[in-house]
Amino acid sequence: MDIHDLVRQLRSKNDSKIVLLVADGLGGLPMEPGGKTELEAARTPNLDELARRGISGLMHPIKPGITPGSGPGHLGLFGYDPVKYLIGRGALEATGIGFKLEPTDVAVRCNFCTVDSSGKITDRRAGRIPTEKSGPLADMLDQNVSIPGVEVFVRPVKEHRFVVVFRAAGLGGHVADTDPQKTGVAPLDPVAADQASQRTAEVAAEFIAQARKLLADQPEANCLSMRGFSEKPHMPTYEEVYGVRAAAIAAYPMYKGLAQLVGMAIVGQPDTLEQEIDVLEQAWGEFDFFFVHFKYTDSRGEDGDFDAKVKTIEEFDGIIPRVTALGPTVLAVTGDHSTPARLASHSWHPVPVLLVSDVCRTDGCQAFGETAAICGGLGQFEAVYLMPLLLANAGRLEKFGA
Amino acid sequence: MDIHDLVRQLRSKNDSKIVLLVADGLGGLPMEPGGKTELEAARTPNLDELARRGISGLMHPIKPGITPGSGPGHLGLFGYDPVKYLIGRGALEATGIGFKLEPTDVAVRCNFCTVDSSGKITDRRAGRIPTEKSGPLADMLDQNVSIPGVEVFVRPVKEHRFVVVFRAAGLGGHVADTDPQKTGVAPLDPVAADQASQRTAEVAAEFIAQARKLLADQPEANCLSMRGFSEKPHMPTYEEVYGVRAAAIAAYPMYKGLAQLVGMAIVGQPDTLEQEIDVLEQAWGEFDFFFVHFKYTDSRGEDGDFDAKVKTIEEFDGIIPRVTALGPTVLAVTGDHSTPARLASHSWHPVPVLLVSDVCRTDGCQAFGETAAICGGLGQFEAVYLMPLLLANAGRLEKFGA
Repeated sequence: MDIHDLVRQLRSKNDSKIVLLVADGLGGLPMEPGGKTELEAARTPNLDELARRGISGLMHPIKPGITPGSGPGHLGLFGYDPVKYLIGRGALEATGIGFKLEPTDVAVRCNFCTVDSSGKITDRRAGRIPTEKSGPLADMLDQNVSIPGVEVFVRPVKEHRFVVVFRAAGLGGHVADTDPQKTGVAPLDPVAADQASQRTAEVAAEFIAQARKLLADQPEANCLSMRGFSEKPHMPTYEEVYGVRAAAIAAYPMYKGLAQLVGMAIVGQPDTLEQEIDVLEQAWGEFDFFFVHFKYTDSRGEDGDFDAKVKTIEEFDGIIPRVTALGPTVLAVTGDHSTPARLASHSWHPVPVLLVSDVCRTDGCQAFGETAAICGGLGQFEAVYLMPLLLANAGRLEKFGA
Repeated sequence: MDIHDLVRQLRSKNDSKIVLLVADGLGGLPMEPGGKTELEAARTPNLDELARRGISGLMHPIKPGITPGSGPGHLGLFGYDPVKYLIGRGALEATGIGFKLEPTDVAVRCNFCTVDSSGKITDRRAGRIPTEKSGPLADMLDQNVSIPGVEVFVRPVKEHRFVVVFRAAGLGGHVADTDPQKTGVAPLDPVAADQASQRTAEVAAEFIAQARKLLADQPEANCLSMRGFSEKPHMPTYEEVYGVRAAAIAAYPMYKGLAQLVGMAIVGQPDTLEQEIDVLEQAWGEFDFFFVHFKYTDSRGEDGDFDAKVKTIEEFDGIIPRVTALGPTVLAVTGDHSTPARLASHSWHPVPVLLVSDVCRTDGCQAFGETAAICGGLGQFEAVYLMPLLLANAGRLEKFGA
């Protein structure tokens, strides 16, 4: 029995409001030994005040030592065991551009590539064709490829990358990549790895044949390769598991897509953090749970720019009063993982988390930061336990057993 | 999917060097309430400096409250779930005397015992016959017992105890003990508990018949009993799971044997701690991972000698500069469990651990000790997560998912 099975049995409804504020890649590292992390260096009076009123801790997105990608990082945060609920590469790519996958879909990551007159690949990325050129080509394929009994969607991603989604009953997701991962050879044929994916391989072969004819006159993008065939991951929804009507407020397609996979409603079309809080205010009456995603802490960490990450954290701190003014029953602030500027990448370091509610057992932490959180009352825990803690603090979990 | 499955997917290679220094039974207890533990009482300037530069925590060898034996303690430390990877008693006894088990072996713990003229046991331990007498008897059996199609090895352990190993294809390890655990009755016949162990039971019966003839004239050790039949445990190797070339540097056969079970190379034949570090220096270029085992912290704990344990800890502290001079990418110091002199035995208390690397997120701990480690940045964790943490700090684990 996993934590979801337990929560399903115990969940109950009330009028509480839960807000989960996620600063992507929030956790960090000092630039030199003994220094401060980005969060510790930032001036964050509002977050520090929350730490004083609440309870802090450190959260492992997956397990100690494991660095998560954005998909597993968010699934963990949403309370879904990221090792159990795997998102295929094609499904993640489709999700990342905001394509809403249906249960009968198979999604595929595709590359435009260049082949010579004998059909051998000369450039696996079609000269990294710019998006302005590749986008119209993807649209052209979307409009012109026609396969009886199958809905075909072709969507541009960036440069040579695009996504194809096949929609029809009976399409399995286990088809081998057609990208041979080298030049000087022809793309491989799509080969099914199981009986259930036989039809998918046939559909993919038909797609490739039609697309090659349509692309034949292109100087660079005259062919394509396919990778990461995958079905929509099957996940129970927030309503089913937690009994909450959940809203996701995010600017980036990837995070809207991930939230959609667990059945959250995507509300508003905010671009900035201030706009996200506008949406939060507007949607306040309609939902029980709000996931608010702030991207730029991660982006500046990935850039390796410590000072810029500090600044985005201060910007994030600035909107806290607007959130607390709404009077959430439970407010949690955390990241989906650490992205230390020092490493310019995601990392395994546990991410600081704070939780404020009337019944949270305050711990004496005086600031929100990695070092302070070590002695926080939440201790160190795996991200999948955050949702049960939020529900408990909201009075939404009954006693287990008599 | 367990942590090994995850690590297998994510491991990558680089030029990093990882050193795991294990002071056996390191954790302790104060002799009176409010006092210091052995580690806290010891003068350990080098370990304290590592704690300042690194990150500390407390490690549960198995689960909270569970006291490990040496086998499970080390398996946990090596990252192998000690509850999943069980080492049978016979296999552990063989491992403990440095016998290198092969995959087709069945190992058995044996006792010399005394039977009367009617074949009933009068002494289950043959008068605790001294090793000088029992050793030659074991050698005599080793040379004279002959079973067609089976290699038979008889090795002395200590006093009345010895080990028998049967080597042949098709020998299962499930045979009931022949030791009736009481006197006044005859030893039991070896009975197979499953079909696969039928042949093992027959081989054991033949061994007993021949051995009893060979021992018939002995005044005390005129018979034997067999316990803990077990196959070589099937464990993936360090290379398979972690992708590292691992070396074990230890003076005691038991720890060399345990390291061998997980595929570590046993390097050198050191007797003292200084000699172990000599071996470490010599082998530095050839391996990625070094397990260095220091026995005497545990021995003095088992003796119940607080002051002597303090002294061995100070000796251990003294070699740290020779290790850091090698410039390991990641250095961890811990024990396989606690052995408080106060209890004169292994205990369940979590064992302090410290980890130093350039990217370890220092935590403000100023000394290495049980109390200081409570507020260490590693928190409290199960020993099986130490290896993932070491690999992560060495840059040897890729991101999980996109």
